[in-house]
Amino acid sequence: MNISHIEHLGIAVENLEASIKYYEDVLGMTCYSVEEVVDQKVKTAFFLVGNTKIELLESTSPDGPIGKFIAKKGQGIHHIAFAVENTNTALKLAEERGVKLIDKEARKGAEGLNIGFLHPKSTLGVLTELCSKQE
Amino acid sequence: MNISHIEHLGIAVENLEASIKYYEDVLGMTCYSVEEVVDQKVKTAFFLVGNTKIELLESTSPDGPIGKFIAKKGQGIHHIAFAVENTNTALKLAEERGVKLIDKEARKGAEGLNIGFLHPKSTLGVLTELCSKQE
Repeated sequence: MNISHIEHLGIAVENLEASIKYYEDVLGMTCYSVEEVVDQKVKTAFFLVGNTKIELLESTSPDGPIGKFIAKKGQGIHHIAFAVENTNTALKLAEERGVKLIDKEARKGAEGLNIGFLHPKSTLGVLTELCSKQE
Repeated sequence: MNISHIEHLGIAVENLEASIKYYEDVLGMTCYSVEEVVDQKVKTAFFLVGNTKIELLESTSPDGPIGKFIAKKGQGIHHIAFAVENTNTALKLAEERGVKLIDKEARKGAEGLNIGFLHPKSTLGVLTELCSKQE
């Protein structure tokens, strides 16, 4: 699998602007990018802490994945993303090891990364993303 | 606040042994320590990924914090811990900035760290720990 580090943590928030304010004014971090990912129905804000990013996610629609997550569980940590060398290779390996995949093939995510999700039913309840810069 | 990195992620699991097997056999990580924290009513297992630890938490009692969390929300990411220089200084600063504290003073946590928790009502639903090696 060759996981090098936690690339980012995705955190579902109700209000991106107020949440950026908390991470900046209370925790002292700096938001370096705000991006909309249209097909995921989210607006995102990124912070770097050590070599891990925090990705705040505000839903742009109640029927998007983050909208549904907040309706069910409230605000909070939504997923963990591990950096791997090659997402497709890692997805295949995970499947061989008995993991149910959400994405059979890598697709493009925020920041141009190649991403793929494992199903939380196979990962002890933790929605898990694998991502890599290049394939 | 001077957060240097994510020190660890706490993940609530139902069965520590089976969970260690998943992190080792599927994700390819290595468990380097298993520890019981009696006053928190948990057994913990630690993995290092990059410079962040993953701390799996199995409750030793249904009335402990992890037992209650799993009963309410199921298995999943329980808290995020940020490394700071001095936990007491950081707790005081957080309180000055309007955060409700769970711990007014740092206390000893797993691995001998000085730890203190912020209340998730003040932190956008994310149970947040601050921790430091020395005070």
